[in-house]
Amino acid sequence: ADTYFRNRAKERLDMLTMPHWALGRLMDLAMDLAGMTGSMNPKFDNRVIVTMAGDHGVTAEGVSKYPAEVTVQMVHNFLRGGAGINALARTVKADVVVVDMGVAGEIEGVEGHLNFVSRRIRPGTDNMGVGPAMTREEAILAVRAGIEIAHELSFSYSLFGTGDMGIGNTTPSSAIVAAFTGQPPEKVTGRGTGIEDDQFLHKVEVIKKILKVNNPDPRDPWDVLSKIGGFEIGGIAGLILGAASRRKPVLIDGFISTAGALIAASICPASRDYMIAAHRSVEQGHIIALDHLGAKPLLNLDMRLGEGTGAALAMTLVDAAVRILTEVATFEEASVSQANV
Amino acid sequence: ADTYFRNRAKERLDMLTMPHWALGRLMDLAMDLAGMTGSMNPKFDNRVIVTMAGDHGVTAEGVSKYPAEVTVQMVHNFLRGGAGINALARTVKADVVVVDMGVAGEIEGVEGHLNFVSRRIRPGTDNMGVGPAMTREEAILAVRAGIEIAHELSFSYSLFGTGDMGIGNTTPSSAIVAAFTGQPPEKVTGRGTGIEDDQFLHKVEVIKKILKVNNPDPRDPWDVLSKIGGFEIGGIAGLILGAASRRKPVLIDGFISTAGALIAASICPASRDYMIAAHRSVEQGHIIALDHLGAKPLLNLDMRLGEGTGAALAMTLVDAAVRILTEVATFEEASVSQANV
Repeated sequence: ADTYFRNRAKERLDMLTMPHWALGRLMDLAMDLAGMTGSMNPKFDNRVIVTMAGDHGVTAEGVSKYPAEVTVQMVHNFLRGGAGINALARTVKADVVVVDMGVAGEIEGVEGHLNFVSRRIRPGTDNMGVGPAMTREEAILAVRAGIEIAHELSFSYSLFGTGDMGIGNTTPSSAIVAAFTGQPPEKVTGRGTGIEDDQFLHKVEVIKKILKVNNPDPRDPWDVLSKIGGFEIGGIAGLILGAASRRKPVLIDGFISTAGALIAASICPASRDYMIAAHRSVEQGHIIALDHLGAKPLLNLDMRLGEGTGAALAMTLVDAAVRILTEVATFEEASVSQANV
Repeated sequence: ADTYFRNRAKERLDMLTMPHWALGRLMDLAMDLAGMTGSMNPKFDNRVIVTMAGDHGVTAEGVSKYPAEVTVQMVHNFLRGGAGINALARTVKADVVVVDMGVAGEIEGVEGHLNFVSRRIRPGTDNMGVGPAMTREEAILAVRAGIEIAHELSFSYSLFGTGDMGIGNTTPSSAIVAAFTGQPPEKVTGRGTGIEDDQFLHKVEVIKKILKVNNPDPRDPWDVLSKIGGFEIGGIAGLILGAASRRKPVLIDGFISTAGALIAASICPASRDYMIAAHRSVEQGHIIALDHLGAKPLLNLDMRLGEGTGAALAMTLVDAAVRILTEVATFEEASVSQANV
């Protein structure tokens, strides 16, 4: 990010008509946004949530309480505008683009839908409980798809948010967080869509097995993604890398998106400068993953939906930060007396 | 609040196409809003932040690092649109109404300004370090002014936010929180606009003196407000009562607004049903006051400005909650498979 504009923003924010830095994290965010965009007046009128969908062979291990067919059903729900992400994206005037990165069924009747992109690798990953989820080539294809989508959307949009849909995808996400942070599976595994105690213990065992069978190398993001990732997780990693390469801020949604962000940060550490952690999910591994990235979430509303819902909601905080930077008067401009020192 | 509509909202939210209650506190809020308004489709297009301004004789005790003249200067800044609250209100499309409840100087050149209301009690309270801040009659006048303003604005607005401006007003607020909660002054006193360690210790001593000199009766809100309150704090209490009496949700801003909310809740406990705690301020006494009210803040962004900035920001969460209630499809509507039980 651009140190010159970051510093210029700080100088202005220091002088605004309020006790010093009294709008706290919104002012931190304003400074970051100036640095990311190289501008004292960044414009984020056109914003998009990219919701990446994929299916997971690991559902064969009984890690989710929803059937895998829900992934395809929810893609249709997104495209009809009836899902949580649609409601929250409308709240903040963001578009939603849905990407099929590799769902198990066919997505029918969506030809020509402006908000649908097909970058199918194949109909769902293999069961990582018995071997790698995908090949190294497929991992590269998934990340490349995300990068290309970000580059294409960069012509129309100046602010990105990540999102995910994929029954079973908290399992690879927990495995990825365990692999990169070295934390034991029981600390980075959560309840996903709402499993009970015995299912939780089973899920932890499955993640232990996944790590043992695959032995991913945390120094090699492609090894991690191919062995214990997902097509939509690779797509999210690519989206972040593509947005960062175009100097566009990207709001990282919840747990699955943060697993994607860990992959992105491992491929290119500089991409972290463009990541904004939107919220803290209920999933217990999320804060561990965010800490590892050095990111502090903006919101904490007991959400655990994914889809991009947290990223959408946080777009308002981006708007607020920009207005603070550009619309609040300084002490001098407003002829307000300063503090006694 | 209306139990029938609250329950109807819960029934619908239980069936939305997402894991159960996966949007967490936004869904709690949606249920509350249905109950407050008695509607499954509440409309909050017209919203207003009412920023109450007043001055404080207690500044003679050296509790703030800003001179009292800043209160009047900031009122002008609000009316010109250059303050933090103006930027955040524009972010959420809220109007800002500024009320002179009793600032020390004259507010000149604002005749006919549509967003300015004068309900001056007198030019600042007396120094509560040596005796009561105001008379009991003045306390009643201040609360009545707030109620009347809320009733008048209720013709135009369906969602309220509170705000405050008054150099020195964290001191009466800490004293009020100490009086109602029984917590010692050192636990409910903060850094206000940013005082240093020695000034902080001095402020705690001043608050101890205030409580000793005045001995307010926590069972009598009029005693508390008149002895250790402020004109703008009374105005905020009245605004909350007036909004609640018209079944309008009111977002409680930060520490000073929450002191006003404690007064309102003490006058009329049922008013709590219409309060929404917008955010958690940096002021350490704030969470103690919110706990006493039984309110859980929505945002936590290290803010400590007041003016209504937290209330404004949280209006987006109200919008999001309404959209979740009204725009997200149920499993049946969207033909999505439900969880295995």
